[in-house]
Amino acid sequence: MTARPVTIVEVGPRDGFQGIVPFIPTERKIQFIERLAATGLERFEITSCVSDKAVPQLADAKDVIAASQGVPGVHGQVLIPTASRARQALAFGARSLAYVLSVSESHNRNNVRRTPEESVSDYAAMIADLPPGISLRLNIATAFDCPFEGRIGTEQVLTLLDQLIPLAPTAEIALCDTTGKAVPDQVGEVFDAVISRFPEVRSWAVHTHDTYGLGLANVHAAWEAGVRVVDAAFAGLGGCPFAPGASGNVATEDVVWMFERRGIQTNVDLSALIEIAKDGACIPGASAGGRVRKALAGCA
Amino acid sequence: MTARPVTIVEVGPRDGFQGIVPFIPTERKIQFIERLAATGLERFEITSCVSDKAVPQLADAKDVIAASQGVPGVHGQVLIPTASRARQALAFGARSLAYVLSVSESHNRNNVRRTPEESVSDYAAMIADLPPGISLRLNIATAFDCPFEGRIGTEQVLTLLDQLIPLAPTAEIALCDTTGKAVPDQVGEVFDAVISRFPEVRSWAVHTHDTYGLGLANVHAAWEAGVRVVDAAFAGLGGCPFAPGASGNVATEDVVWMFERRGIQTNVDLSALIEIAKDGACIPGASAGGRVRKALAGCA
Repeated sequence: MTARPVTIVEVGPRDGFQGIVPFIPTERKIQFIERLAATGLERFEITSCVSDKAVPQLADAKDVIAASQGVPGVHGQVLIPTASRARQALAFGARSLAYVLSVSESHNRNNVRRTPEESVSDYAAMIADLPPGISLRLNIATAFDCPFEGRIGTEQVLTLLDQLIPLAPTAEIALCDTTGKAVPDQVGEVFDAVISRFPEVRSWAVHTHDTYGLGLANVHAAWEAGVRVVDAAFAGLGGCPFAPGASGNVATEDVVWMFERRGIQTNVDLSALIEIAKDGACIPGASAGGRVRKALAGCA
Repeated sequence: MTARPVTIVEVGPRDGFQGIVPFIPTERKIQFIERLAATGLERFEITSCVSDKAVPQLADAKDVIAASQGVPGVHGQVLIPTASRARQALAFGARSLAYVLSVSESHNRNNVRRTPEESVSDYAAMIADLPPGISLRLNIATAFDCPFEGRIGTEQVLTLLDQLIPLAPTAEIALCDTTGKAVPDQVGEVFDAVISRFPEVRSWAVHTHDTYGLGLANVHAAWEAGVRVVDAAFAGLGGCPFAPGASGNVATEDVVWMFERRGIQTNVDLSALIEIAKDGACIPGASAGGRVRKALAGCA
């Protein structure tokens, strides 16, 4: 991949699409990935290997993984919640895995039916079995706030990472604001704490939602703390049309605009991205977010 | 007024309403001010004395000024672009004035048909004539970016303030991001520079627009630099339905949410504010913004 000052991971095909009803044809998903890759985006979360029943939109994971391998320049990670799903993803041809677990027990139980400690053991088992050459990332959900337990203390994050990081020190670590309730001073404090405690980690990432309008503010706070990898979804997808309070990821075009405006190169063609975001906002059943798409459309 | 850690100036009745077509009945404007005051908001920009032809929505400034004086707890400033408009506002009964001029010559010419230097002379003339007991604020437009000249350098802001501040050192100074293109690092830098250069100024304010999704990020950056007065408009009003790129002020409810989440008291009843913001978003012709209104409506 190209070295760049900030790297955006386009998570629209996974986090953006997963809540959308009706099903988006696989071919259309691949077209979006192809078009997004053509703007200069290289890293993607392309899909997830999870229960088809729980997330019917991603039931075509096998086909998406296979097809995305034919798209030039795409480095596509696959979200997996367990070692057994990791095996499935690898069998489908995935070369990059993002293992997700939550800091808070109630959210982890709700999401993957395990305690965080059980997920740590499962992660260890997955690492032990991992073939060589597989890129690894840890997605730490509810790193700032939990829908059931409220605000998460920095110490809870550190305690969980104390167990996880020695198992695979080269894994990228993403701290995820699952609810969108993180505030910038908290984001700065938590990243300051983890970066200082775990100097062996080479790559930290931030994953924000724009539910309360703080998506960009939190990305900025993470950048100031030293984070150089940012998750985002084109068109701010990720909102759930059946639960108006559950808003989407920070919009990729908003993130690109902010960094470019700061003079920090993203190597992404914003004009081309805006056109794709417009189409993303028109996916049947989608609930779009972000501001830059509308702002620049208005200037045209 | 109540001493509070952060003070919000509700500018919806001026900046939020001014671009809306059709005309909002004066009685309805006053009802909004009354309801907003009942949430705990004390400071307002209630209207502007400007050309009725240029801004027909605010042609009822006289009546709004008169009526708002009967609303308990409301400290309402009136925006004025010239000394002659200041005399008009005072004749209408205003006790608090916000004089607006731009850092950039092209914007000031476009807005008030003068160079910034001519506006400085006009401001000096106004100060000389000001009766005792009138609160004064300076709204410095295009303090970060100008629609005609692009990014504004910090030195330009300092040079203008060098001329203005000695004329009335007790005036509050608001730096306004007219285009919404300010980025948080710039906001922090500019406020650091002005606060350090002008220690005699007792109150600094920030005025942001959310055009590119950076409204809250910029408010946060200003707060971190020491700014304790924040302009905002309920429902994120201020967008222009005829120019989709011209988006509204940062939403008051988003600002309240962010500060309260940080543990910084606003003394504003957020639930009551959300209800008013919902009604604000439904004003015929209005273009609403902000995220918290929808997020909390979804949770209800």
